Amino acid sequence: MNYAKLLAVAMNEARIGFEEGGVPVGAALFAADGRLLGSGRNRRVQDGDPSLHGETDAFRKAGRQTDYRDKILVTTLAPCWYCSGLIRQFNIGTVVIGESANFAGHPDWLREAGVKLVELNDPECIALMRRFIERSPTIWYEDIGVPPAPSMP
Amino acid sequence: MNYAKLLAVAMNEARIGFEEGGVPVGAALFAADGRLLGSGRNRRVQDGDPSLHGETDAFRKAGRQTDYRDKILVTTLAPCWYCSGLIRQFNIGTVVIGESANFAGHPDWLREAGVKLVELNDPECIALMRRFIERSPTIWYEDIGVPPAPSMP
Repeated sequence: MNYAKLLAVAMNEARIGFEEGGVPVGAALFAADGRLLGSGRNRRVQDGDPSLHGETDAFRKAGRQTDYRDKILVTTLAPCWYCSGLIRQFNIGTVVIGESANFAGHPDWLREAGVKLVELNDPECIALMRRFIERSPTIWYEDIGVPPAPSMP
Repeated sequence: MNYAKLLAVAMNEARIGFEEGGVPVGAALFAADGRLLGSGRNRRVQDGDPSLHGETDAFRKAGRQTDYRDKILVTTLAPCWYCSGLIRQFNIGTVVIGESANFAGHPDWLREAGVKLVELNDPECIALMRRFIERSPTIWYEDIGVPPAPSMP
């Protein structure tokens, strides 16, 4: 499987998200043969919807599936607990991660559940996410559930 | 806090879901003072959307929040890994569980992350979910990511 080609689909979603002013995390779900089932991106800013991370939007767009063990989820950024829980509950067989430099995620927890992880350490994914975190730190921390620091006394 | 009163809001969502032919899990997110922020229900059948469990729909309906540590998430059924991941990522402080007889969930994993769990063991929640699992076992297993058994040779 050409994972870099699959990542390009997720990265295109991330770039659109960045241009929209949103959190630039994109994702896509593929069948075992590489057929695209659905792609999506984080929609916190665009739709005011905190439930849609890149991974959950791609999962949603792919519609109802009865078995995910042979599916491939590709995401531009390492999955948070929310998206890791999605992967584990639905037994998504393979997860391709564009980068985990800006957010480490929980790879050991996924591996222990039998998920195959492919880490691509992609420089373009790293650079886009870094630009976003520098541009919009408040939105980024909101998106991963880190509350604002209390103001100084 | 009158948790039974909060559960009634989630249970109302679950009942509507049952009547719609859907998976009857309802949930609601409340502020620390008991003010309702959003309620929702599983929408796999109704919207063909596998990303919306009761908990994630309630989370969505509550919109963007900057801090969940003082919030109360009420759900009619113990949260699966997907919804447990949501709770853990966003540090939702308190989770009220209508029942865990039909689905055990992952209470230890949530407790170790510092989540306060309130288990109500509600007979009406148990009965409604049981009726659904008997009526629609295939949809129920699809909703928790259990693939159909291979047909006999």
